[in-house]
Amino acid sequence: MKDVKIENMDWVSYKELTEEGKCKIILPVGAIEQHGPHMSLNPDVLIPSHIAEEVAGKADNMLVAPAISYGYKSQVKSGGGNFFPGTTCVSGSSLENYVFDVLQAYVNHGNREFILINGHFENSMHLCEAADKLVNKCKAEKISVKVYLLSYWDFISEETIAKVFPDGFAGWAVEHGGVLETSIMLKIYPELVDMSKAVDVEPATFPPYDVFPPDPSWVAPSGTLSSPLKATEEKGALILEECISGIVQHLN
Amino acid sequence: MKDVKIENMDWVSYKELTEEGKCKIILPVGAIEQHGPHMSLNPDVLIPSHIAEEVAGKADNMLVAPAISYGYKSQVKSGGGNFFPGTTCVSGSSLENYVFDVLQAYVNHGNREFILINGHFENSMHLCEAADKLVNKCKAEKISVKVYLLSYWDFISEETIAKVFPDGFAGWAVEHGGVLETSIMLKIYPELVDMSKAVDVEPATFPPYDVFPPDPSWVAPSGTLSSPLKATEEKGALILEECISGIVQHLN
Amino acid sequence: MKDVKIENMDWVSYKELTEEGKCKIILPVGAIEQHGPHMSLNPDVLIPSHIAEEVAGKADNMLVAPAISYGYKSQVKSGGGNFFPGTTCVSGSSLENYVFDVLQAYVNHGNREFILINGHFENSMHLCEAADKLVNKCKAEKISVKVYLLSYWDFISEETIAKVFPDGFAGWAVEHGGVLETSIMLKIYPELVDMSKAVDVEPATFPPYDVFPPDPSWVAPSGTLSSPLKATEEKGALILEECISGIVQHLN
Amino acid sequence: MKDVKIENMDWVSYKELTEEGKCKIILPVGAIEQHGPHMSLNPDVLIPSHIAEEVAGKADNMLVAPAISYGYKSQVKSGGGNFFPGTTCVSGSSLENYVFDVLQAYVNHGNREFILINGHFENSMHLCEAADKLVNKCKAEKISVKVYLLSYWDFISEETIAKVFPDGFAGWAVEHGGVLETSIMLKIYPELVDMSKAVDVEPATFPPYDVFPPDPSWVAPSGTLSSPLKATEEKGALILEECISGIVQHLN
Amino acid sequence: MKDVKIENMDWVSYKELTEEGKCKIILPVGAIEQHGPHMSLNPDVLIPSHIAEEVAGKADNMLVAPAISYGYKSQVKSGGGNFFPGTTCVSGSSLENYVFDVLQAYVNHGNREFILINGHFENSMHLCEAADKLVNKCKAEKISVKVYLLSYWDFISEETIAKVFPDGFAGWAVEHGGVLETSIMLKIYPELVDMSKAVDVEPATFPPYDVFPPDPSWVAPSGTLSSPLKATEEKGALILEECISGIVQHLN
Amino acid sequence: MKDVKIENMDWVSYKELTEEGKCKIILPVGAIEQHGPHMSLNPDVLIPSHIAEEVAGKADNMLVAPAISYGYKSQVKSGGGNFFPGTTCVSGSSLENYVFDVLQAYVNHGNREFILINGHFENSMHLCEAADKLVNKCKAEKISVKVYLLSYWDFISEETIAKVFPDGFAGWAVEHGGVLETSIMLKIYPELVDMSKAVDVEPATFPPYDVFPPDPSWVAPSGTLSSPLKATEEKGALILEECISGIVQHLN
Repeated sequence: MKDVKIENMDWVSYKELTEEGKCKIILPVGAIEQHGPHMSLNPDVLIPSHIAEEVAGKADNMLVAPAISYGYKSQVKSGGGNFFPGTTCVSGSSLENYVFDVLQAYVNHGNREFILINGHFENSMHLCEAADKLVNKCKAEKISVKVYLLSYWDFISEETIAKVFPDGFAGWAVEHGGVLETSIMLKIYPELVDMSKAVDVEPATFPPYDVFPPDPSWVAPSGTLSSPLKATEEKGALILEECISGIVQHLN
Repeated sequence: MKDVKIENMDWVSYKELTEEGKCKIILPVGAIEQHGPHMSLNPDVLIPSHIAEEVAGKADNMLVAPAISYGYKSQVKSGGGNFFPGTTCVSGSSLENYVFDVLQAYVNHGNREFILINGHFENSMHLCEAADKLVNKCKAEKISVKVYLLSYWDFISEETIAKVFPDGFAGWAVEHGGVLETSIMLKIYPELVDMSKAVDVEPATFPPYDVFPPDPSWVAPSGTLSSPLKATEEKGALILEECISGIVQHLN
Repeated sequence: MKDVKIENMDWVSYKELTEEGKCKIILPVGAIEQHGPHMSLNPDVLIPSHIAEEVAGKADNMLVAPAISYGYKSQVKSGGGNFFPGTTCVSGSSLENYVFDVLQAYVNHGNREFILINGHFENSMHLCEAADKLVNKCKAEKISVKVYLLSYWDFISEETIAKVFPDGFAGWAVEHGGVLETSIMLKIYPELVDMSKAVDVEPATFPPYDVFPPDPSWVAPSGTLSSPLKATEEKGALILEECISGIVQHLN
Repeated sequence: MKDVKIENMDWVSYKELTEEGKCKIILPVGAIEQHGPHMSLNPDVLIPSHIAEEVAGKADNMLVAPAISYGYKSQVKSGGGNFFPGTTCVSGSSLENYVFDVLQAYVNHGNREFILINGHFENSMHLCEAADKLVNKCKAEKISVKVYLLSYWDFISEETIAKVFPDGFAGWAVEHGGVLETSIMLKIYPELVDMSKAVDVEPATFPPYDVFPPDPSWVAPSGTLSSPLKATEEKGALILEECISGIVQHLN
Repeated sequence: MKDVKIENMDWVSYKELTEEGKCKIILPVGAIEQHGPHMSLNPDVLIPSHIAEEVAGKADNMLVAPAISYGYKSQVKSGGGNFFPGTTCVSGSSLENYVFDVLQAYVNHGNREFILINGHFENSMHLCEAADKLVNKCKAEKISVKVYLLSYWDFISEETIAKVFPDGFAGWAVEHGGVLETSIMLKIYPELVDMSKAVDVEPATFPPYDVFPPDPSWVAPSGTLSSPLKATEEKGALILEECISGIVQHLN
Repeated sequence: MKDVKIENMDWVSYKELTEEGKCKIILPVGAIEQHGPHMSLNPDVLIPSHIAEEVAGKADNMLVAPAISYGYKSQVKSGGGNFFPGTTCVSGSSLENYVFDVLQAYVNHGNREFILINGHFENSMHLCEAADKLVNKCKAEKISVKVYLLSYWDFISEETIAKVFPDGFAGWAVEHGGVLETSIMLKIYPELVDMSKAVDVEPATFPPYDVFPPDPSWVAPSGTLSSPLKATEEKGALILEECISGIVQHLN
């Protein structure tokens, strides 16, 4: 399979591949965040990175930029909350400015199209702001830039959900550290999952508001928002296959 | 009914009401954003302001601060997009810092509990950041502050949805300028709604990604994401009643 | 009288009114600040908002944007100081950036001329910076924008002062919460003034420097810098009439 | 006369003089700004620096810090405007942050009292913000800091004005580059004044608003807002004497 | 060998390892920057990451945080310049704030000692600022934090230099993409080096100043500042061994 | 000798001298920093200012702008550290933004070439960032600007070093407050040096890393990094002569 990771190229090869802005640059953005006692802290980085490489491998003229590892602060209802040891997050303005600068640097090389593949829900609005600022600054300088922003899970169909959750789906909101992410990790980095440590938890339920400082009692002690017990490598393969082919289909 | 709007009080009265941090301060945050040709630009300000006053009127020891009118940039999939004339939005950092400073000022008066009632989906993560920064700064200064953050529509039950949308609910994502907001406005500011101008549109469908600059063709020319035609004052009353009593119940 | 408030328009009407940059947009900017025990906290918002609407009603092609309610920190010598309960102010950078973004959004709609009507002395230099930054950014993008910045009291003539203060005028510097503002509020929002609570104070005198943190003993306990006792609705009408006609005459 | 300039001291001497926070630190803040064809660009720096040294020379326990030379943007009505060649000004946030950091560094040495002597009207609100932020940050860290902020001309009495302007005083607002500043410069830096180049102008009159971008036709081509022709060294001596003794009297 | 990479741990294990602040956290910081046509874009990330893992493997109580990949702008005299395709750098403030936030998050977990291993010369002063700000903010909050900042090449002795450059050492300043970095990469990531593409260049000489915008003619077309031709895996092993043992010795 | 200091010119003369961007503007940037008990706190300001004036006096079409006095935080290994009383430094972002704004103002006058003469090592990267930002912003506005950045000591040759240090040169890194700076000050400001207070110290040696907070025990109690005892006015003259002629030669 062709090598699509920019960081592994020498600059002359990169220059030839990207001349005349002919490549789309994929930037994976994730987070370092607890995902339960059964999984490493980096699924939100590894999953979008894996998808990015697979997409670029299948598509024409796509390259993968080094991922942004540290993302925006974990929220209780989507990531368990920013108070767990190991959850290591940055402020919104730091993420926005860092991502903005990275995209600007790729624009300076002559690139004009970008795909941000997000692996951490809480990043979304800050990536949106970085993309919007970039596009507007470039426009003022008469440079036409296009940024696609996606979260990989938005490419999963109801059919796949039905297969992955045959006993019923508790909803996207509580998938943090549950069957979905665990299955994907079992498929791509089984050495970073230890199902013997997986803790069974009821799907989390929350009041219809947030509170700051967050209340740790809202989350199961294990840190996941639903149970990962029924995760399997096969489910992971199914989900990944759909995300990858969906992204290729929409954005190639 | 008692007057709960801080701005209408003289400072001595306000001081007496808030002594010893005994009041919760409600801050409505909205946006100036198109809501279709049949409605004014300010539902996202007026609705949370109305709810805030009703909640404070029913609860003990709650006061309503002057609302923040201009909110974060409208996004295509939730608000039609930032390119509509009349949609008048600020950047994320400006909103965060402005709200942070306002909350800090109320903390300086001795207040310790806040309720942010959000009327514009796109504000959520930036309000979250403002609240988180405030709580952390205060904590470093040994001041214990609590901020509740809510979007009023999260208090609407499935039962109410079933009543409001007897023919089926197309989902929260496309409610911008549709039956829900229009009904509420018909109830509280009928003079700002002109149903004769309401345009029937199919519920919007979007690709599973965002793009910057936004593509205006993704949105109906009228600017709403679903049809407002079946909005009624009665539905508005039903929704409001549930939101108001729900907030009172949870946060009093 | 024609409706001039942008927020009450639907976007299609707003678009038609502002096409080809033919409208001047008036943005009132005020503050939430104590004005003595006899008056509400919002005169600095309500007065410029009222003037803006009257001016737009009389002029050709002017519209009024939603006001900015929270302004820069009250200073002892002009507003009594930032330590009074109820005085709720933001930092200079937050005000600048928020106002800048709001103006930028109106520029994005195609508007090219703006009138900032200031109701709070302390805002002046920060509005100046916002206007200057906007004009320079637009110029760099080959967009020609013009911003007028005014404080309404600068349109009051010596003749009017002589009529309003028949016993002698103690100077603009001490008018905070005194005859001038109280008279205007008696005219436009009498329900927000309670003259029975008005406190008679000598015109404030200050040393020729400022000190931080401010010294509360420099200000009368009531918070006003001169006595509001001789305020009347008639004086308010006289002042308003002159401000409104002056602004129309200069900027129409 | 004792040496009061911090920059000329070695660190050991400085340390001994400032131990236990026993010194007030004076920081002159000015601007590089045209003052007519008859005068150099630096009166706003040199005058407060001179006053600072004289004050420190007469007072107990005052030292003078190196001046801040570049100030906030010149405004048409107070400094002729930011478009004159030679007028070299910085943004509000840059001035605020630079001054804040300088004061913080002096706090780190153990100093607790500061006197900002301002020589450029437009700096005032930005110095106010720097002082306020410093005091609040220190307070949060349980360090009690006091900052006095003054503009030297506020120490000039009506009696002196009557002597300096025997034919009538056109008002503070138009003193830019006129008799007052020119007289002081004739007294302290006669080599930087060339009265043969002084241009007679009528006192400037302005409309009751500002406009951005500024309109150069509002200002006399020479750049001063009133005529410097009647400036004399003697008037300069009189003014300085009063400012210096006034500051010593109030702040020693 | 024990696993020292934080990102690969589950949160419970991480929590146990770091309790009571007993671990030093190593944060590698690099850059994506051209290193000649014979080498990938990521040596400045991979080398400090490798060293970090080796150091943590040998030391007691050290863990390795996910690296920061994008660093400060490449300068002509140290990295060839920011204009090469593939050189993808961020501004100083973005790097500072991002690193600051990452360190703050680790402090929030209870960690108190940090080692920043820098792989890109241009990062140095911005890392210094991030470290200084963190330490001061923590100190104000009564938290005692210590940050060690090092560039790995500062641990190479003159003896090693003599062995690596038997024909004479042209100086640290021109080692970009030369024998030193290439040798290390040959040792640790030989698949990312293609010596058949290595270009022989004379050691760069520069005028005693910098210029902006940079002048591409100052740098060899290949992008390295000296010749990589004499790089060998053995030299890489020698250098690495000394850096790793030196860091362990000093900081364990 | 012709007068080259911008601040001493009237604006009309400055305008004529700088028309059509024909002048290079030199901006000296220094620091207020301890340099041992034998020397004042301002060598880093006075030396580059002196050199700037000499260079401009000898070159064609160069003018000297008022210096920036307060520089970036002193580091232990280059300036003794930021904890010495009298060392009065600002943050990186404050320095960058202040210098950026000053340069922008000179660009607004029509100037297009700048020479930053740095007198304080720690400023370098922050000046680099200011210059880079300016050049890029101007480029986006189709204005071509060139900024030269130099530290005066980079113009000293090995021959001169051999003469100044006949007993051997301990290296640039430890020249803070030593023979080099002291000799120059003896030449240009002998009244600010008191050799009777000079303290003999061994050249400093440091571990190959930095630590925050800095460890005062790494520095001699006197604050210099090497001994100033062998400084002489003659050595100062020799060094200055070479720096000045070198700069003229390279940049005229």
